[in-house]
Amino acid sequence: MTEDLKFSARGRALVGQKMFAVLEQARRIETAGEKVYHLELGNPRLAPHPAMLSRTVQALVEREVGYTQSAGHPSLRQAIADLRARTWGHTVTEANVVISPANLIISQFLDLVCDPGDRVVFFTPAFPSYWAAAIHIGLKVESVPLDLATGYDLSDDAVDRALALAPKAIIVNSANNPTGAVYDRAQLERLAVECDRRGIWLLSDETYGEISFGRPFHTLGGLELPRLVVMSSFSKLFSVPGYRIGFLIAHPKVAEKFALSVSTLISCLPIFTQLGCVAALDHLDKYTEEVRHHCTVMTDWCSEALRKSQRLAFVPPKAGFYFFLDISACGLDDLSFSSMLLERHQTAVTPGSSFSPDMTGHIRIATCGAALDVHEGVRRVVALAESL
Amino acid sequence: MTEDLKFSARGRALVGQKMFAVLEQARRIETAGEKVYHLELGNPRLAPHPAMLSRTVQALVEREVGYTQSAGHPSLRQAIADLRARTWGHTVTEANVVISPANLIISQFLDLVCDPGDRVVFFTPAFPSYWAAAIHIGLKVESVPLDLATGYDLSDDAVDRALALAPKAIIVNSANNPTGAVYDRAQLERLAVECDRRGIWLLSDETYGEISFGRPFHTLGGLELPRLVVMSSFSKLFSVPGYRIGFLIAHPKVAEKFALSVSTLISCLPIFTQLGCVAALDHLDKYTEEVRHHCTVMTDWCSEALRKSQRLAFVPPKAGFYFFLDISACGLDDLSFSSMLLERHQTAVTPGSSFSPDMTGHIRIATCGAALDVHEGVRRVVALAESL
Repeated sequence: MTEDLKFSARGRALVGQKMFAVLEQARRIETAGEKVYHLELGNPRLAPHPAMLSRTVQALVEREVGYTQSAGHPSLRQAIADLRARTWGHTVTEANVVISPANLIISQFLDLVCDPGDRVVFFTPAFPSYWAAAIHIGLKVESVPLDLATGYDLSDDAVDRALALAPKAIIVNSANNPTGAVYDRAQLERLAVECDRRGIWLLSDETYGEISFGRPFHTLGGLELPRLVVMSSFSKLFSVPGYRIGFLIAHPKVAEKFALSVSTLISCLPIFTQLGCVAALDHLDKYTEEVRHHCTVMTDWCSEALRKSQRLAFVPPKAGFYFFLDISACGLDDLSFSSMLLERHQTAVTPGSSFSPDMTGHIRIATCGAALDVHEGVRRVVALAESL
Repeated sequence: MTEDLKFSARGRALVGQKMFAVLEQARRIETAGEKVYHLELGNPRLAPHPAMLSRTVQALVEREVGYTQSAGHPSLRQAIADLRARTWGHTVTEANVVISPANLIISQFLDLVCDPGDRVVFFTPAFPSYWAAAIHIGLKVESVPLDLATGYDLSDDAVDRALALAPKAIIVNSANNPTGAVYDRAQLERLAVECDRRGIWLLSDETYGEISFGRPFHTLGGLELPRLVVMSSFSKLFSVPGYRIGFLIAHPKVAEKFALSVSTLISCLPIFTQLGCVAALDHLDKYTEEVRHHCTVMTDWCSEALRKSQRLAFVPPKAGFYFFLDISACGLDDLSFSSMLLERHQTAVTPGSSFSPDMTGHIRIATCGAALDVHEGVRRVVALAESL
């Protein structure tokens, strides 16, 4: 009698993250013995800093395998507070910081401040987890599209439109995944200040901020606003997405709610991975300089390779390692293009509709993987585009 | 303007896990330079199996720090499926298994099958995470209390009462936290079969099953029922709560929902911890034999020590490492007793009301910690009880 399995509204509204479904599909092909070129996930293959790995190993050897505080290991919270206090120009303490997987922070934020049916605004294209979390919770998502013509920058008009929708919450993501845009400072600050004035919650996802190379990145952390939550992650900064460690900085009353949410959902995170992150932070500037250099080189190389097809329109990223490609000149929608690319050319990418339902004329490719995957994968994207 | 911070209904309904709040309080005392005896958390201090740690370290050294499938690393899902298939007497495949932190599985289960306002039944006293998750989601919790007089066993009457409440879901937990009871096989099976017949979802939390020593543990895994989810965790079996790895076994359609939920909430879990768990499973029988031996010895020692006070009523656990103590003869409620114990006797325990709001005449102590904590902590519990 499995036909009548009835799930809850939230259970029925689960969509997950498309790129993980693509990964699963790709792994099945690999299990069958074929090579797949992975451009679907932002899964950096740069070597993590040795100090990070060795501190993690040391903690394991010392059997640091117990529980720790739900808000995060005190030494990691303190290290992050110190780091931000240095650059943000105002006091940041442990009470402002909560450690949680970055992907979970997105769900936690929306769940803490929105009730089902509430309106939330994303500037699109937007990271699939925002969609997955909002749909799961039962929110009404309003898209405010940004344009290829202006390099997907946050425009005056886009800010006005977002505010005019009077949502419960807005998520803003600079440096951006998937476009690689780094947003205009004045517009970002206007958005934050106006959100506060109107009682709108704002999540500033700054995961890729420190790996901006084409334009100076501006953090919203300098503003002390009670409804502003600033989040980031160790995944991309330190090439360790498998550590599953992110963090947020917020007003202490808001941080307290996040800590209760961590306690309720996952109890706490491992000590050994958190201690590894503490060790990594000592090397942040030098390590991210290397990451930025790597991203710059890959961006130049990929831009040149992709320009070989007139059928692929894009702006090279100013941060991170994603290209959001307009494939509409190819005459196939995103799902058809992606599945043909995977089945005939063994190359995995993420369909554009994962970033906004109307973006069926796009795909996203990630250029942070193993060099072979990136070079050969990009070549195959171009080859398919040209063959259509 | 932080006074008017307005959280969602779910945000307002966050209570977290009391034992993590106690841990936080204890750590503050420790930071001030005082020793605290930890009996609040089931935080085993036995050495994990060397093969588990060394496989984890090896994976880190080999830089297995990327993403993996949301449903779990294929090798771990397969190893768990093989393990269960051997003892459950029916086919279990990778498609039945999802890897997720055990605490999250509780939230995921309730969230996947219940809508706000739905009724859920717990046999009480019940693990605080069940309460935290249900309250967070907005469920109506109905307690079916079990009795000290019958060793907190699952009785015929308790099963009838649970079913008569016609809830959307029931959570059953044998071997039990906090009572250490191992439930009667016939009642457990009757509960499961009747739940299925009536369309009630059932979560069987079998986290402590393999560390039963006072009565043979019976798993519900032998029944193939579409609305039955069987969960367990590596935390207690292998003394690695800090790994944050649990697993569930369910009908493939249900497992698929859990995998989508993992994808939406946390993307996936680390590869290196999952590979450590694969290595540990080769040693499950021998390692848990050692854990059972340790628990038996500690249970005998603690029972004898606790019997020194006439004011502490309890039944020694038949599994795991918790004592649920009736302190009502002491003339203090659980919160007063616990805070006096922490402040005057530097010993942290979990108040009984965390396991059911009406159980203010109880405390739970965990005897799996460092030997010094357990011996000295238990002595202090007895000393306080006698001094009142």
